[in-house]
Amino acid sequence: MGRVTERRRVVRIRDGVVSERADTLVAEEPLEIRLNGRALAITMRTPGDDFALAAGFLLSEGVVHDPEQIASIVYCAGATDEGANTYNVLDVRLAPGTPLPDIALERNVYTTSSCGLCGKASLDAVRTTARWTLGEGPALDPGTLAELPGRLRAAQRVFDKTGGLHAAGLFTPDGGLIDVREDVGRHNAVDKLLGRALQQGRLPLRDHVLMVSGRASFELAQKAVMAGVPALAAVSAPSSLAVDLAHETGLTLVGFLRGSSMNVYAGAGRLAVAAAL
Amino acid sequence: MGRVTERRRVVRIRDGVVSERADTLVAEEPLEIRLNGRALAITMRTPGDDFALAAGFLLSEGVVHDPEQIASIVYCAGATDEGANTYNVLDVRLAPGTPLPDIALERNVYTTSSCGLCGKASLDAVRTTARWTLGEGPALDPGTLAELPGRLRAAQRVFDKTGGLHAAGLFTPDGGLIDVREDVGRHNAVDKLLGRALQQGRLPLRDHVLMVSGRASFELAQKAVMAGVPALAAVSAPSSLAVDLAHETGLTLVGFLRGSSMNVYAGAGRLAVAAAL
Repeated sequence: MGRVTERRRVVRIRDGVVSERADTLVAEEPLEIRLNGRALAITMRTPGDDFALAAGFLLSEGVVHDPEQIASIVYCAGATDEGANTYNVLDVRLAPGTPLPDIALERNVYTTSSCGLCGKASLDAVRTTARWTLGEGPALDPGTLAELPGRLRAAQRVFDKTGGLHAAGLFTPDGGLIDVREDVGRHNAVDKLLGRALQQGRLPLRDHVLMVSGRASFELAQKAVMAGVPALAAVSAPSSLAVDLAHETGLTLVGFLRGSSMNVYAGAGRLAVAAAL
Repeated sequence: MGRVTERRRVVRIRDGVVSERADTLVAEEPLEIRLNGRALAITMRTPGDDFALAAGFLLSEGVVHDPEQIASIVYCAGATDEGANTYNVLDVRLAPGTPLPDIALERNVYTTSSCGLCGKASLDAVRTTARWTLGEGPALDPGTLAELPGRLRAAQRVFDKTGGLHAAGLFTPDGGLIDVREDVGRHNAVDKLLGRALQQGRLPLRDHVLMVSGRASFELAQKAVMAGVPALAAVSAPSSLAVDLAHETGLTLVGFLRGSSMNVYAGAGRLAVAAAL
């Protein structure tokens, strides 16, 4: 594999000075995820950790919650004209007894058959498919949370070379880094991280914090809830629907986590500061 | 409508000082795009400019390239239990004679039926569906390009309140701002911008520059090419496949556009500096 980065020629302009040199870019390739032989989704992703990405995607969609439910994941081989494997198509086989989802399920989004599609329907879908409740969860210290962005950044291997990757990190409540994944797509980074945790039998991730390098959208909050993670922290802003989902499920949602500052949009009860209010 | 932002209570922590107040968040809701009554795609977007978003999406996918090909766009009304319109489902009717696409077409990504899915296939799909070649295009001045990020930022209305939005701006080669659109999703911001230009009969956008607030992925480069825009500038890094598409189609691709510095990844011939090499 080894296609996480690629080299290209680039013309640099710095204060009017023009030069040409080789530059390292983050690799982007399509990945098709098949389920028992049928196409389920295509995502543009950075190659690598593809099996974890597929497992995490199926976890988010409520298809699996236990590693035993995945019988196998294989790359589809030899279907190009030249018989080559592109490593861009994989097939997940579910274990006997694991129900197949409605194949109309769209990428990362729950569909409804009526015209009544709305944020509330999206919230309801997560609540009814989530395998675990988040429970009381760990107590969180603001000072420890404030250290997570720096630790996530330090653990990013590819960003330093390309500047082009989103990162997702899994931490213990006392700030210990469990795992970090990077991808050109923010959802993929989280899927790779949580999919690997699923494969390792770590779910539900009740005693953990999920930290993401960018914004906190509904879909990222959904992924946290589906993996049983009680706290999601983001460097940037959350959306209204992410906050609504956090309130509905008991997820602690922290945004604008920068320096010693942060905004707690939901689940402030897990932070020691709550008593001050 | 007026749902571009929403208010929520937030607990703020600043250097150990805890307070509680109302905060403005960017609104996020699902949008289902139907084509002649059949569901085509669902995207999580910021409400507003939904018809332009749908038009831009169909433009990117090669379904339409002329405003006359869209007979009508309407919100599906009255399908909730209470008979309410959620304004989250819309139906596009194509004009007679406009071919319907293969409905298996996935959101923003070209699919293939074989295991041969790869970046090359994605490039080929754009080349074969693009309605226009980019042609010679305008000459671009690095000094003018350097001013675009500031002008885009100044034109963002919602970001200042929420910090949570991606922006896409359409500029003339001499730096004049034609239009700016914002959305919680980067693809949506570009679809809204280019869809509006389609609706106004401005395509192909041969004498324009598209500027985006974040990274330049393959899908954003694809959207520029499908609208006939000869230059794409981004504040952050491009991906390898975006650069490949730019080379293949003659798109000028500028990344890391910050201060007076920038990297030109493809199509440097349109910049005056090319002669210096």
